[in-house]
Amino acid sequence: MKSWAVETQILLQLLVLGAAKSALGAQRLYTPDWPSLDSRPLPDWFDEAKFGVFVHWGVFSVPAWGSEWFWWHWKGEGSLPYQLFMRENYPPGFSYADFGPQFTARFFDPDDWAKLFQAAGAKYVVLTTKHHEGFTNWPSPVSWNWNSKDVGPHRDLVGELGTAIRKRNIRYGLYHSLFEWFHPLYQLDKKNGFKTQYFVTAKTMPELYDLVNRYKPDLIWSDGDWEAPDGYWNSTGFLSWLYNDSPVKDEVVVNDRWGFNCSCRHGGYYNCADKFQPSSLPDHKWEMCTSVDKWSWGYRRTMSISDTASESEIIAELVQTVSLGGNYLLNIGPTKDGLIVPIFQERLLAIGKWLRVNGEAIYSSKPWRVQLEKNESVWYTSEGAAVYAIFLKWPENGVLSLKSPQTTSSTQIIMLGIQEDLEWSKSPHEDLLIHLPQLPPSALPSEFAWTIKMTGVE
Amino acid sequence: MKSWAVETQILLQLLVLGAAKSALGAQRLYTPDWPSLDSRPLPDWFDEAKFGVFVHWGVFSVPAWGSEWFWWHWKGEGSLPYQLFMRENYPPGFSYADFGPQFTARFFDPDDWAKLFQAAGAKYVVLTTKHHEGFTNWPSPVSWNWNSKDVGPHRDLVGELGTAIRKRNIRYGLYHSLFEWFHPLYQLDKKNGFKTQYFVTAKTMPELYDLVNRYKPDLIWSDGDWEAPDGYWNSTGFLSWLYNDSPVKDEVVVNDRWGFNCSCRHGGYYNCADKFQPSSLPDHKWEMCTSVDKWSWGYRRTMSISDTASESEIIAELVQTVSLGGNYLLNIGPTKDGLIVPIFQERLLAIGKWLRVNGEAIYSSKPWRVQLEKNESVWYTSEGAAVYAIFLKWPENGVLSLKSPQTTSSTQIIMLGIQEDLEWSKSPHEDLLIHLPQLPPSALPSEFAWTIKMTGVE
Amino acid sequence: MKSWAVETQILLQLLVLGAAKSALGAQRLYTPDWPSLDSRPLPDWFDEAKFGVFVHWGVFSVPAWGSEWFWWHWKGEGSLPYQLFMRENYPPGFSYADFGPQFTARFFDPDDWAKLFQAAGAKYVVLTTKHHEGFTNWPSPVSWNWNSKDVGPHRDLVGELGTAIRKRNIRYGLYHSLFEWFHPLYQLDKKNGFKTQYFVTAKTMPELYDLVNRYKPDLIWSDGDWEAPDGYWNSTGFLSWLYNDSPVKDEVVVNDRWGFNCSCRHGGYYNCADKFQPSSLPDHKWEMCTSVDKWSWGYRRTMSISDTASESEIIAELVQTVSLGGNYLLNIGPTKDGLIVPIFQERLLAIGKWLRVNGEAIYSSKPWRVQLEKNESVWYTSEGAAVYAIFLKWPENGVLSLKSPQTTSSTQIIMLGIQEDLEWSKSPHEDLLIHLPQLPPSALPSEFAWTIKMTGVE
Amino acid sequence: MKSWAVETQILLQLLVLGAAKSALGAQRLYTPDWPSLDSRPLPDWFDEAKFGVFVHWGVFSVPAWGSEWFWWHWKGEGSLPYQLFMRENYPPGFSYADFGPQFTARFFDPDDWAKLFQAAGAKYVVLTTKHHEGFTNWPSPVSWNWNSKDVGPHRDLVGELGTAIRKRNIRYGLYHSLFEWFHPLYQLDKKNGFKTQYFVTAKTMPELYDLVNRYKPDLIWSDGDWEAPDGYWNSTGFLSWLYNDSPVKDEVVVNDRWGFNCSCRHGGYYNCADKFQPSSLPDHKWEMCTSVDKWSWGYRRTMSISDTASESEIIAELVQTVSLGGNYLLNIGPTKDGLIVPIFQERLLAIGKWLRVNGEAIYSSKPWRVQLEKNESVWYTSEGAAVYAIFLKWPENGVLSLKSPQTTSSTQIIMLGIQEDLEWSKSPHEDLLIHLPQLPPSALPSEFAWTIKMTGVE
Repeated sequence: MKSWAVETQILLQLLVLGAAKSALGAQRLYTPDWPSLDSRPLPDWFDEAKFGVFVHWGVFSVPAWGSEWFWWHWKGEGSLPYQLFMRENYPPGFSYADFGPQFTARFFDPDDWAKLFQAAGAKYVVLTTKHHEGFTNWPSPVSWNWNSKDVGPHRDLVGELGTAIRKRNIRYGLYHSLFEWFHPLYQLDKKNGFKTQYFVTAKTMPELYDLVNRYKPDLIWSDGDWEAPDGYWNSTGFLSWLYNDSPVKDEVVVNDRWGFNCSCRHGGYYNCADKFQPSSLPDHKWEMCTSVDKWSWGYRRTMSISDTASESEIIAELVQTVSLGGNYLLNIGPTKDGLIVPIFQERLLAIGKWLRVNGEAIYSSKPWRVQLEKNESVWYTSEGAAVYAIFLKWPENGVLSLKSPQTTSSTQIIMLGIQEDLEWSKSPHEDLLIHLPQLPPSALPSEFAWTIKMTGVE
Repeated sequence: MKSWAVETQILLQLLVLGAAKSALGAQRLYTPDWPSLDSRPLPDWFDEAKFGVFVHWGVFSVPAWGSEWFWWHWKGEGSLPYQLFMRENYPPGFSYADFGPQFTARFFDPDDWAKLFQAAGAKYVVLTTKHHEGFTNWPSPVSWNWNSKDVGPHRDLVGELGTAIRKRNIRYGLYHSLFEWFHPLYQLDKKNGFKTQYFVTAKTMPELYDLVNRYKPDLIWSDGDWEAPDGYWNSTGFLSWLYNDSPVKDEVVVNDRWGFNCSCRHGGYYNCADKFQPSSLPDHKWEMCTSVDKWSWGYRRTMSISDTASESEIIAELVQTVSLGGNYLLNIGPTKDGLIVPIFQERLLAIGKWLRVNGEAIYSSKPWRVQLEKNESVWYTSEGAAVYAIFLKWPENGVLSLKSPQTTSSTQIIMLGIQEDLEWSKSPHEDLLIHLPQLPPSALPSEFAWTIKMTGVE
Repeated sequence: MKSWAVETQILLQLLVLGAAKSALGAQRLYTPDWPSLDSRPLPDWFDEAKFGVFVHWGVFSVPAWGSEWFWWHWKGEGSLPYQLFMRENYPPGFSYADFGPQFTARFFDPDDWAKLFQAAGAKYVVLTTKHHEGFTNWPSPVSWNWNSKDVGPHRDLVGELGTAIRKRNIRYGLYHSLFEWFHPLYQLDKKNGFKTQYFVTAKTMPELYDLVNRYKPDLIWSDGDWEAPDGYWNSTGFLSWLYNDSPVKDEVVVNDRWGFNCSCRHGGYYNCADKFQPSSLPDHKWEMCTSVDKWSWGYRRTMSISDTASESEIIAELVQTVSLGGNYLLNIGPTKDGLIVPIFQERLLAIGKWLRVNGEAIYSSKPWRVQLEKNESVWYTSEGAAVYAIFLKWPENGVLSLKSPQTTSSTQIIMLGIQEDLEWSKSPHEDLLIHLPQLPPSALPSEFAWTIKMTGVE
Repeated sequence: MKSWAVETQILLQLLVLGAAKSALGAQRLYTPDWPSLDSRPLPDWFDEAKFGVFVHWGVFSVPAWGSEWFWWHWKGEGSLPYQLFMRENYPPGFSYADFGPQFTARFFDPDDWAKLFQAAGAKYVVLTTKHHEGFTNWPSPVSWNWNSKDVGPHRDLVGELGTAIRKRNIRYGLYHSLFEWFHPLYQLDKKNGFKTQYFVTAKTMPELYDLVNRYKPDLIWSDGDWEAPDGYWNSTGFLSWLYNDSPVKDEVVVNDRWGFNCSCRHGGYYNCADKFQPSSLPDHKWEMCTSVDKWSWGYRRTMSISDTASESEIIAELVQTVSLGGNYLLNIGPTKDGLIVPIFQERLLAIGKWLRVNGEAIYSSKPWRVQLEKNESVWYTSEGAAVYAIFLKWPENGVLSLKSPQTTSSTQIIMLGIQEDLEWSKSPHEDLLIHLPQLPPSALPSEFAWTIKMTGVE
């Protein structure tokens, strides 16, 4: 008995650490503890990217009702509306797993998606490789018959999208849920007060290593960490391997969801809470993730137009986020057929259209010394010598009044999308008064949120 | 044998003419021939309505691929892409009828639809009660097990929508296809050169009478007439009953698809071809029907945003149609689940928003003596003493120049949605020059297509 | 209106009477009334056949639960067990029509069936072309999308089986239900006290004529007549055509279910009630129909071995029926897949095995002057000079004692399946004592029911 | 990294060895090697039982075509008929896992099964807990979403049947396949020449321990061992735990399929090959397993009566097996609905009926000094002083002639099922001549295979 168990340990080690062997003798920069891991500088590409698209896709896209937490609401919480929904639409005894075969992805064309994300101006795309339901969108070797190759699409969704995304030089991020609501080994560990790690050993770790080795992601968007400490999840162990020895050690970026004590405190950049929006400039790189559908990350068939963020709301949020030093990760949920519905296309393309004019103030920008003009909906960013003031409301009198920029003799002011210089003056209170051009509606550079670019200001 | 056949004839007569009996002795105004039927004046409500919503819904909403002609392309034409689609997605031997049970309409809420159509400013709604596939959206007594009560929704879709529509004082029209691609009796008649009428007797007539008696429609939108003459379809017989004796004889409106010699020549108002758009003012009331999805009337899952008519295209088409004396019937295709997807909601609500400002120039308007301002995208309508000029492009210099209206001493000019009078002047060439207001984008009364209302012009 | 209705009548007449036209001028032997129709002699083949197989197959084979009356119990009666069955196994709103696509008949091989029926010794086979559910097992032109060509098998089951059956010189009978529980036109007629005949005109008559013209059946097994009088069903009209003008006028046989006043009184041979078994010799040719599954005619998945008639019960019933002048029509219900399950195969083959030895006493036999030997389970038949005594119990002492046959000087006695003559003697009471052979079990000519053939007895 | 891996090893050890801990300090009788394990005496109950029922049930019962090796033939071998079957009956991309939800077991009543097995005279029942497809018929903690609780029946089939079986004092055996054709970890180990044990660690061992701890089986019927050595499977480790420490250590019986070098050489009793039938008395307890369906262990919808073993064939095989010291394990395959079809019921009940008369010669019997009477189909068994001669053919002259038994002065001879002693004599060649009773067919104690019980013979 003993000899078998020991041998087992060695073998498991080899399985999950396969890639590590090649690194024998390499320099170990990071030790598996937070002080060391937190000291790693964030690779530049992430802050420069500013705008990414988040994609929630999985078996939850089949019922496509309520939200991607469908299974939990139904079976975990026993929520009545979910129980009724099932009773009214499915035969008795129909289980969540029975949705699997209907996740066909029959119209999924990864190039179409990638083209759309590129047209939206996204610099990175994050796909759910496995949500809390545990279904893996790639042929995980430890999720037999509950993955997209064995069931439903019969395709490697993670791989296919990655290939298409990278053809267009977009960075590829992988969302991965540490926990799985109903995995029996997870439930066992939970019952044991997370003093056992059967689940982490048998499922989480093999899958995280497999994802990294197989797809070489630019970003790991970790989630589902909050019920257990990072020690349970083996987070620091994994991250030290990721930073020291993995094939993506130089470029990979991670977020902060690695255990219930980690969010907003440890890891790579910070997500803090979902849809987190700080009111002043944070001192650590962060990302705001939000969803076009205000009520769900996964596709909902019953989503109504009034549930969606409008184009102007989205642009305003993007502007505010970037001004406050964040990245903006906007989510859409494809259908079980693999389609991104027109309303999501429209929203994404509107961002792309806006960024084609105003992207100069967004991509690779840095926060300015002021973020928000007082009492006004004007947000600042900067890049090198340029300061950008993005205003969300066109002033009624055609004159934009700014308190923060100090003009100099070399001050020059233009509006992005318009060729000529704008006239400006100073108010009695020394406010900078910018005289906006008089334009018929069709000649406006964008429909909402216009950017003033100033050089020679302080 | 003989006695049976004679008795049969009498019974059938009673069946389809049930309602007629009550009218015995009533005055017969119209005889079953075109000269008489064409002489009936069109009930006023139709011309006043101007804008309606068309709804294509049926079993074709299940594959939701290609178009509502799916069955024909697949089995009638044997189109390769359709054959491949079936081969790749369904088991061998899967028939069109097998789609029926999947037409669940599970989320269909007729009040939600009606609310949306009202918010869109529609004054009438036309629903497909039966498309060429023959599936009836009501419990037709002669379409057993191929109707929405026996199969799929298990609901009377025609009845439910009608109730909701009328609660909001919207007129209710019923689309009805005369022919059915694959009905064996139709195919038999066709083989017989339409010298037999088995199909008309057993299916078309009973259903048309049933629809009228049951739902008392304001409009019958006939279709599928083109393969056979009106004599085959018994069109004049049916219409004379409809005009003389039916429960809707005073208010009902019909279109012109009653046989291959009829379109654009006989019936009520004219549709002529689908998406027909005349270049000058027709002398007979007409209606332009078109679809938000440019490639299909029924819902297509693969519809992309670039396949949809934009809000500005739709408004422009509505304006042009009304200016030329037509009604505008805009189609959307709900899903098999009974939902109108957000992109369609958005388009419809955009029209409603536009009509809330500009509806005065549309509803109950009449064509003016000029329809289109030369070399300009300005369309005229009129109502009583008022002349409306709807311009689609805002002039760069802020001055709208019109050749057609002759000013008088009492001329007054405003823009709909703006309180104060506009200044105007005359150009050297006697053009009317209207000085548009200077407005920031958010203060414009609409996003596109603005209406100038003139009184005291000739 | 009028002209249309008249034309309609003529056309309908042509439709259903198509075949009749060729008979114009032919001699009309039978008038459409019972005295005339009942006077027609029954074609010889039927009485000679003696044994047939009945096949109940239809959409009811899909739930395959309860019985072929599933739909009626569920929706007509609202029987609780049926409602629970549906609630526990199907989604809400699942309708009977939704079973249609699952009636695949995927393994249906008509030649396999025919081979089996031949091996069973059947001389005729009767298939349900349409049961009370209304689903037609052939492409009926008036049952669109509720027939086996449009839905489910996508095959002409009636036609395919007929071809295979006739290749083996077995007669082909078509079961046809006059009424359909839920057909809307039937329900209308019923509501009208059967004073209207919409259903008969539109459905029953066209289908009966179509069946006859298309498949040229040897037998029409009418059913579902009992709610309405034969006048409603147009039974005498149809039968007079069938006997005078149809393509099967010389050979066709019908039963007695042609209206609620007909069973056991009019028509061809009599079925009287299902499983009817007279106690003495009837004076009109009759047929006993019964089913291997004692509780159902259609296939039931939950059928247990204790629900089936055993081989000895079946043989006993066959013997009794033939002795009393009847034909024996034994039913089996194939699965939705088109298979006849092994237990039915076994029963049928057991009959065939028995008939290969004892068939001489069955086929083409006539009732003898005595049917049942008093106080004994011995049944008589005769053919020409031969009298057959079939005994169901082997006497303990090996001597079969018969009271009825009067021996003569030329009396000869054998047992079918055994070569040599049997010894016999007379008892003190003049009973005929037949000395049965002493045989080990494996040498018995059959396992149960042995036949004594006597010549030279009176 | 290291600390995690070590911890992991310890945890895994605890998981699979959970039950072992309580045994710390207990006496270890068996060491994990074959000489020690093979020395364990077989618990008595097994040899006494003689007759068991084998049940093959799983996802393969859904296609129910070909055999329970469906998946392998289709995807492993790529057999053309299987590929065609799928192509013709299922949509493209349909996977084996997609059959899962259709394994409903909707009519499964474990008490009905148990009642049937009891009526069949079975003393033990062996159920497939997991066949090579890997689907577990119980809620295995390491087969998430590929087990009968998560998918399909949504019930613990192993548990439910066990409870019902034991209520009737029948022993309960669990069939378990060591390998799984398509498990990714198994495939990895195989690729590695079975030098890694990922699969055994993660799947086989946890499941075997779970089965034993949870259901306390009387028998483990191991299978699927042949591709790898017992070292790979950790067989001796498992068996030493089973024999020393498991909750069933005293009563449990196992077979011989524990690695490719084991069959017919190591383990508990021997199965050797499927349907293995030795020609002379083996010196090790063995079991013959066979199936009523000659071509499959799992249910086949297309099984024909000619594919089934007849009652007399089964009885003959049972008699021969027991005479040669074996147990007879007869297999039936239930349907996906959880039903045992009537033909299987009939066969099982026939055995039960036979055993009620002749069981005395079977249960708890021992082989006699002679097994088979030369040139005769007479098989011997014995129990205490009684010798049983079971003859399969009734001699034509009614005299059974036996060479082997030596009569004595106290010799007494009866036939089981018949009250009185039989007369006997000696032939000139000293053969024992037994005068069988003269009985009409209905008075025979059984239909085939009659038992002569002799006492006072040598």
